[in-house]
Amino acid sequence: MKADPEKTRIKEKRRLGLVLVLTGEGKGKTTSCLGMAVRAVGYGMRVVMIQFIKGALHYGELDGAKRLAPEFELVPMGKGFVGIMGDTLEFAEHVEAAKEALAAARRKMLSGRYDIVILDEINVALHLRLVELSDVVSLIKEKPENVHLILTGRHAHQEVIRLAHLVTEMRNIKHPFDLGIEAQKGIDY
Amino acid sequence: MKADPEKTRIKEKRRLGLVLVLTGEGKGKTTSCLGMAVRAVGYGMRVVMIQFIKGALHYGELDGAKRLAPEFELVPMGKGFVGIMGDTLEFAEHVEAAKEALAAARRKMLSGRYDIVILDEINVALHLRLVELSDVVSLIKEKPENVHLILTGRHAHQEVIRLAHLVTEMRNIKHPFDLGIEAQKGIDY
Repeated sequence: MKADPEKTRIKEKRRLGLVLVLTGEGKGKTTSCLGMAVRAVGYGMRVVMIQFIKGALHYGELDGAKRLAPEFELVPMGKGFVGIMGDTLEFAEHVEAAKEALAAARRKMLSGRYDIVILDEINVALHLRLVELSDVVSLIKEKPENVHLILTGRHAHQEVIRLAHLVTEMRNIKHPFDLGIEAQKGIDY
Repeated sequence: MKADPEKTRIKEKRRLGLVLVLTGEGKGKTTSCLGMAVRAVGYGMRVVMIQFIKGALHYGELDGAKRLAPEFELVPMGKGFVGIMGDTLEFAEHVEAAKEALAAARRKMLSGRYDIVILDEINVALHLRLVELSDVVSLIKEKPENVHLILTGRHAHQEVIRLAHLVTEMRNIKHPFDLGIEAQKGIDY
């Protein structure tokens, strides 16, 4: 696990902060962001992940993420899953929470304190109309040049895709649920 | 970032170790594995990643991965990229290295010391005929029931896909290289 920094270090170039979109039905969107955080903290970069859907991360992910602190910061916002079992909130409360998450994301992004800003599940929040497209577009357009901005979640909006530099779709080719296998710790949660 | 374990802990079920394949041209295959490692160490699970293509991870990833030690272990095997610029090795040397990587993977998988075994870029090694399909199939079939086995890399073989419980394809929808943007630290490497 030893790297010789003299050998492998790539000459530093001027950073052009990218807009990344991770979407699709398949696994690996948020997981991929955690992996990017591993890599970024390895470079001494600072990363913040704002969670638009509270409860989307399980305690293993929360505990694991602590190993990447203080360079990696997790900001749980939102009020849990919308419109599914156990959701007792008014839609307006979800909208309010998502609006606060977007405001927090904007502050973090403009603070100069982070190299990478991850808006986890924001595509879902937009799809559910918890946030306005115009507000997400403004946020993307306000991105400081040297900040990487990552937007995750299914159902990425066409306009968000248009504004992105990199878009990856995680496609489900085969899923254990289809085989009647229940969710497994370390894999599904 | 606080989780209340009493509230969020899901009742432990009997583990059924899965075979996962992460493939496709898009970003996020190895990155996703690093993210899974974050989550797994958060649960106190032990993870080993055997790298079939040496040099596929950059020093940021290697340094970042240390934050997940000792539960996460990285085993660089292989002899670098095959047949591309700077490759001065005989093909037979790559084959030898890949064979050793497969033997190491098998030992680790059967050791009882790991909950998750990641064979990073093994699909590429198989595609390049550095390892034999029959050897990879045997490895998958020998997997202990409680171990999750993850195979990454482009060009996953149909037989490997057939044996997997979960297959995700990372699809490139848009890539910054297409826009003439060079590789960015923290994103591309």
